[in-house]
Amino acid sequence: MGVRVQIDAVGNFRALYPAPEADSPRLLVGSHLDTVPNAGAYDGPLGVLLAVALLEALHGRRLPYAIEVVGFSEEEGVRFGVPFIGSRALVGRVDGTLLSTTDAQGISVRDAIERFGLNPNEIPLARAASDVCGYLEFHIEQGPVLESLNLALGVVESIAGQSRMEFTFVGRANHAGTTPMNLRHDAMGAAAEWITAVEYIAKETPQLVATVGSVETLPGAVNVIAGEVRASLDVRHPDDDVRTRAVEQLIHSAQQIARLRGLSVRWKQRMNQPAVAMDSFLSSQIEQAIGKAGCRAHRMVSGAGHDAMITAEQIPSAMVFLRTPGGVSHDPTESVLADDVALAIEAGLYLLDQLAATTTFQKRTCRA
Amino acid sequence: MGVRVQIDAVGNFRALYPAPEADSPRLLVGSHLDTVPNAGAYDGPLGVLLAVALLEALHGRRLPYAIEVVGFSEEEGVRFGVPFIGSRALVGRVDGTLLSTTDAQGISVRDAIERFGLNPNEIPLARAASDVCGYLEFHIEQGPVLESLNLALGVVESIAGQSRMEFTFVGRANHAGTTPMNLRHDAMGAAAEWITAVEYIAKETPQLVATVGSVETLPGAVNVIAGEVRASLDVRHPDDDVRTRAVEQLIHSAQQIARLRGLSVRWKQRMNQPAVAMDSFLSSQIEQAIGKAGCRAHRMVSGAGHDAMITAEQIPSAMVFLRTPGGVSHDPTESVLADDVALAIEAGLYLLDQLAATTTFQKRTCRA
Repeated sequence: MGVRVQIDAVGNFRALYPAPEADSPRLLVGSHLDTVPNAGAYDGPLGVLLAVALLEALHGRRLPYAIEVVGFSEEEGVRFGVPFIGSRALVGRVDGTLLSTTDAQGISVRDAIERFGLNPNEIPLARAASDVCGYLEFHIEQGPVLESLNLALGVVESIAGQSRMEFTFVGRANHAGTTPMNLRHDAMGAAAEWITAVEYIAKETPQLVATVGSVETLPGAVNVIAGEVRASLDVRHPDDDVRTRAVEQLIHSAQQIARLRGLSVRWKQRMNQPAVAMDSFLSSQIEQAIGKAGCRAHRMVSGAGHDAMITAEQIPSAMVFLRTPGGVSHDPTESVLADDVALAIEAGLYLLDQLAATTTFQKRTCRA
Repeated sequence: MGVRVQIDAVGNFRALYPAPEADSPRLLVGSHLDTVPNAGAYDGPLGVLLAVALLEALHGRRLPYAIEVVGFSEEEGVRFGVPFIGSRALVGRVDGTLLSTTDAQGISVRDAIERFGLNPNEIPLARAASDVCGYLEFHIEQGPVLESLNLALGVVESIAGQSRMEFTFVGRANHAGTTPMNLRHDAMGAAAEWITAVEYIAKETPQLVATVGSVETLPGAVNVIAGEVRASLDVRHPDDDVRTRAVEQLIHSAQQIARLRGLSVRWKQRMNQPAVAMDSFLSSQIEQAIGKAGCRAHRMVSGAGHDAMITAEQIPSAMVFLRTPGGVSHDPTESVLADDVALAIEAGLYLLDQLAATTTFQKRTCRA
């Protein structure tokens, strides 16, 4: 297809489909190539294949801008516990600390890159050039929203900010038979009341999701009142203020429940990741292109993190979600509908042509 | 003290303080000598020492009935997972199945008895003789009730019946970020709502205690909605009908919560132990004796199982509870107040004299 294929120093696949003129801007299109253990076939690779499919569909036709297909490495963070290593390199955020991070076998990121035959000292060269004017990522939704709306494609307006916390309710372990209800300080009773409050607050706050996915009871015996319960909390919202207020409300709720029951509660913040807005110009262009393909584009928030969240720091970035049957992802039964993929290609081609006709787009430059 | 001390074939300590006449009835007084790992000093042994203290306090004075001090073996069930082995022998309930039960090292009850130098074939001889007219057990309350009432001693009217269950809520594990609240089937949300219902039903039913002491979340990750939650349930009440109705109500509640949330729930019964009434004649005699010692006797239900629950099958049995500071038991800080122990001895002596003056008591015989 007349593209120049390279693997950059951080292991990203990069293929340049040049513009007729050498000093033209460049649009990045891609997603990640890695996945999780016991995964499906689409989380990541689909976005890279869609980028390749778009180049194929151009049948050699050149646009006033270059297209660079990117297949990011290490998005999931499975091996080193640090996600987005490939896309971090594009915005110059792979530093010495990250390179020294080790996997379960004690192999560092630096060593792993060298053993793969690449030179970690060349990572700065992987950075996106200043001619990059946008990043476009197709990705499966990994959730049930589009399916529930009976829609094929969505436009991501922003990637939700995220708080992760750990709450510990401390009551008093006691005999389940000899301690009357009114003399208990049951940590599980308190945690249960709080989990119900977490659900309630999330349900009454539009777009908020809040999850208690892990609960641990101590001592955890059938005939002993729980003396201590550790519960995780995951809170996400596109608006950081709403998320911060919800977290404060949930801390307050935990304190109040604990106080009324004669317990104590403590908490730790494990993550506080702000929301990232997608580029509004590119997003409306996508919405228009999806419309031309005969679909209604649903504007939505991504609750999961994506490479576009990293590139958005310096590159105008946008995402298209594809309906995910059953919302099932990170599972071998993960799937997409062939018709939805065809629509994504059709909309993508409309988009490329729209951008070709838009001089403002071609004049934009990377913030790097 | 003129007592004949023996170890019976199941390892119970037995010391007979005879009556002047050979065909007199016999009162058993005692508790158990074993305890749990990391235990305190009083759960069990206190009741045996109190029995010995009563004999000492008689200063050789004989009563119209014999007193047999019993120190039961293996009440807690720590080693073989089967409680009350010593007291079972008194009512002829140590059978081949029990003798074949093994500990963590594969040693059977039968082998353990032989290694200890006893003959398991003689266990039938450990059975209480037909001259036994009662069993009296002093035991620490192991709960906070007497302390909360500012009382030293309690009379146990019955030992609560007990149901143990395991509930499994099955929803759908999903991404905590991409699944909106209204499209979730969160097993932890359902379990939390149900645990709140368990507490509510127990609080509004007099004397009922219900406990969810163990909760397990699957997969149990901060960023994954729980697909499955396993929760234990322990329900106790002195009236078996009330307990059975409460269990039915809690099953119904679990089903309703699951149905409204689009989940399923299943459950298993692990234990269904009926309540055991203490002997009403002996209990009123104890109440009277405690009154003579200058105390108000609180009539109460034991939420925990005791040897008296086993002996009551065939022997009129009664229990005196001693206040347990902080309700703390099965812990090295377990304690009693010296004044309460002195009161227990004083009340015990009044009781022995009352029984000596009561011909109906001396005419009672063991149901064996």
